[in-house]
Amino acid sequence: MADQDLPVVRWQEPPAGPAVVLLDQTRLPFEEVELACTEVPALVGAIRRLSVRGAPLLGIVGAYGVALAAARGADVPAAAELLAEARPTAVNLAYGVRRAERAHRAAADGGAGPEGAAAAALAEARELHEEDARASASMAEHGRSLLAGLFPGGGLRILTHCNTGRLVSGGEGTALAVVLAVHRAGALRRLWVDETRPLLQGARLTAYEAAGHGMPYSVLTDNAAGSLFAAGEVDAVLIGADRIAADGSVANKVGSYPLAVLARYHRVPFLVVAPATTVDPEAADGSAIVVEQRPAREVTESAAGVRAAPAGAEAYNPAFDVTPPELVTALVTEHGAVSPAERDSMAQLCSMSRSGELRSGNGMMDS
Amino acid sequence: MADQDLPVVRWQEPPAGPAVVLLDQTRLPFEEVELACTEVPALVGAIRRLSVRGAPLLGIVGAYGVALAAARGADVPAAAELLAEARPTAVNLAYGVRRAERAHRAAADGGAGPEGAAAAALAEARELHEEDARASASMAEHGRSLLAGLFPGGGLRILTHCNTGRLVSGGEGTALAVVLAVHRAGALRRLWVDETRPLLQGARLTAYEAAGHGMPYSVLTDNAAGSLFAAGEVDAVLIGADRIAADGSVANKVGSYPLAVLARYHRVPFLVVAPATTVDPEAADGSAIVVEQRPAREVTESAAGVRAAPAGAEAYNPAFDVTPPELVTALVTEHGAVSPAERDSMAQLCSMSRSGELRSGNGMMDS
Repeated sequence: MADQDLPVVRWQEPPAGPAVVLLDQTRLPFEEVELACTEVPALVGAIRRLSVRGAPLLGIVGAYGVALAAARGADVPAAAELLAEARPTAVNLAYGVRRAERAHRAAADGGAGPEGAAAAALAEARELHEEDARASASMAEHGRSLLAGLFPGGGLRILTHCNTGRLVSGGEGTALAVVLAVHRAGALRRLWVDETRPLLQGARLTAYEAAGHGMPYSVLTDNAAGSLFAAGEVDAVLIGADRIAADGSVANKVGSYPLAVLARYHRVPFLVVAPATTVDPEAADGSAIVVEQRPAREVTESAAGVRAAPAGAEAYNPAFDVTPPELVTALVTEHGAVSPAERDSMAQLCSMSRSGELRSGNGMMDS
Repeated sequence: MADQDLPVVRWQEPPAGPAVVLLDQTRLPFEEVELACTEVPALVGAIRRLSVRGAPLLGIVGAYGVALAAARGADVPAAAELLAEARPTAVNLAYGVRRAERAHRAAADGGAGPEGAAAAALAEARELHEEDARASASMAEHGRSLLAGLFPGGGLRILTHCNTGRLVSGGEGTALAVVLAVHRAGALRRLWVDETRPLLQGARLTAYEAAGHGMPYSVLTDNAAGSLFAAGEVDAVLIGADRIAADGSVANKVGSYPLAVLARYHRVPFLVVAPATTVDPEAADGSAIVVEQRPAREVTESAAGVRAAPAGAEAYNPAFDVTPPELVTALVTEHGAVSPAERDSMAQLCSMSRSGELRSGNGMMDS
């Protein structure tokens, strides 16, 4: 395994650039390879192929994409449209794209000229990137502190699902950033890593990040989590979120909801870690969040396109599920930890979320 | 897909035999190929390679294996030892082997001569085969009748896990035999098939059987079952069992317990279908059942040996889990349906189970 020193996304200045340079996530965990996109269509292709993924990171990449179009002298509104639709349901992507596009237009309208407007778009992308890193650091500290209060003796065994580390973020991530803070404080006994079928983000990416940080970890099939709970081997569950409705319902990678039910049955804390922008004030409750149904072949074929099910097999393959607020012990954002079942907490978070203003608002999610 | 006309196991008489002929389950669902074992070592190899699997079926195959040794004039006690240990934790296998071996010895002790003793072993294997088919038919009818009482309107949406059909049985199976009876009665709206990581017995084998019977079915990742429950799309859960303790605790394929917890949370009936011989009077409760831990590579590698997790990743890979009796709505055996949480019912089932007498009794399970 490589050093994990390469950033997940970086801006490359001339003469090698301008370019948006991505760590190609499709080659992980076996190769650390950078992918330099010097034109917007190449970046759109990289997003579609999942070379870059993860809600917060897609927003950052979308913003850099607008900066790239501007720096190349391309048609910025057209490029923004292409980027925002690179994955049709990618709300965070559209959010980042619109922020950079708005900064570009404001500078142009203010008479900045093409170079000045391009610089404004790039500055906005960098600001978004840094904001996300700061939010990540705050979430990590709030989450660590909450867990230290719940488990003063340390020795924590934490179960997580999907990938929520630096590969989805401008910083160290969401739920996995908390785990990392616990690990650095010497309080992590074991990280249980759900493999996260069908796309194995846990086995591939979370295991890769955990190994890179020297955490004690084990990978398990998603259905083996029940045995760990029954054996008393899970102290807390930490997951991220793709969208949080105004009532505190949490949409996240499929398999999160069964963990919430198991955690409740075994009286284990279930924590959701996400930046405030993940709260969508326009989604009144869980039913307002349309869950993306993905292709059957992700289920009927295993990794590497090997077929498992017989030809013609139908599949049920939702990418996400929705956990109601009453099953969530705490929602940890950069502003602190709250109980999502409390109406006032959610109202306050909705007002802090700037996500509504720039969203296209079809309520669908992306991974 | 082939016709599914080939039996899962059959005895081949001379001149082509004597041989035990197996449907090679490692080639399913893509090829229906028979594997003729003319000597015990070949049969042991087939068991080890999982060409034949499933607790009741392994018992039948083990008994035929003893008959094969006897018919070939081989050393029967040595062959029985080899067969019983082909998979070290295969209790049902040992049960079938010991039954045929005992019949062979009784005949020999009674002066039957080698041919007569071989005929006695074969007769015992055939008897076990037929007993299992009869038990299967009874379970199917008891289960169907129970469901018809619970859901008189039909239109059932049943969720199942792992493979429990004719591929594990002398008849049509356990839980899947019930589903088939419901289907034949026109009352099956949809069968939800958990893919059943890590070895994908659901996606590969249950989907294959469901397709062969023309059932409406969909395959799903194990972690997507929660979404189905939340959407009200599951009327009942039906699974088999690998071992049932005297207190009614049910050991079955890993992933069964989380389904039991989800079913309880959503007030959905959770039925376990298994022959009375699955009840192990020697295991007082769930803690007496030692759960086999399987190799890490089943988790860290996907199908076809493609690696998913980084090199050196540890894995937690229990083959089974244990569901406590209070989460089981009904236990359906060939004798009818009972509540395993009722002490008297379990005491009666323990007395009906003849499994204790012939078991080696280490309490471990096999798949």
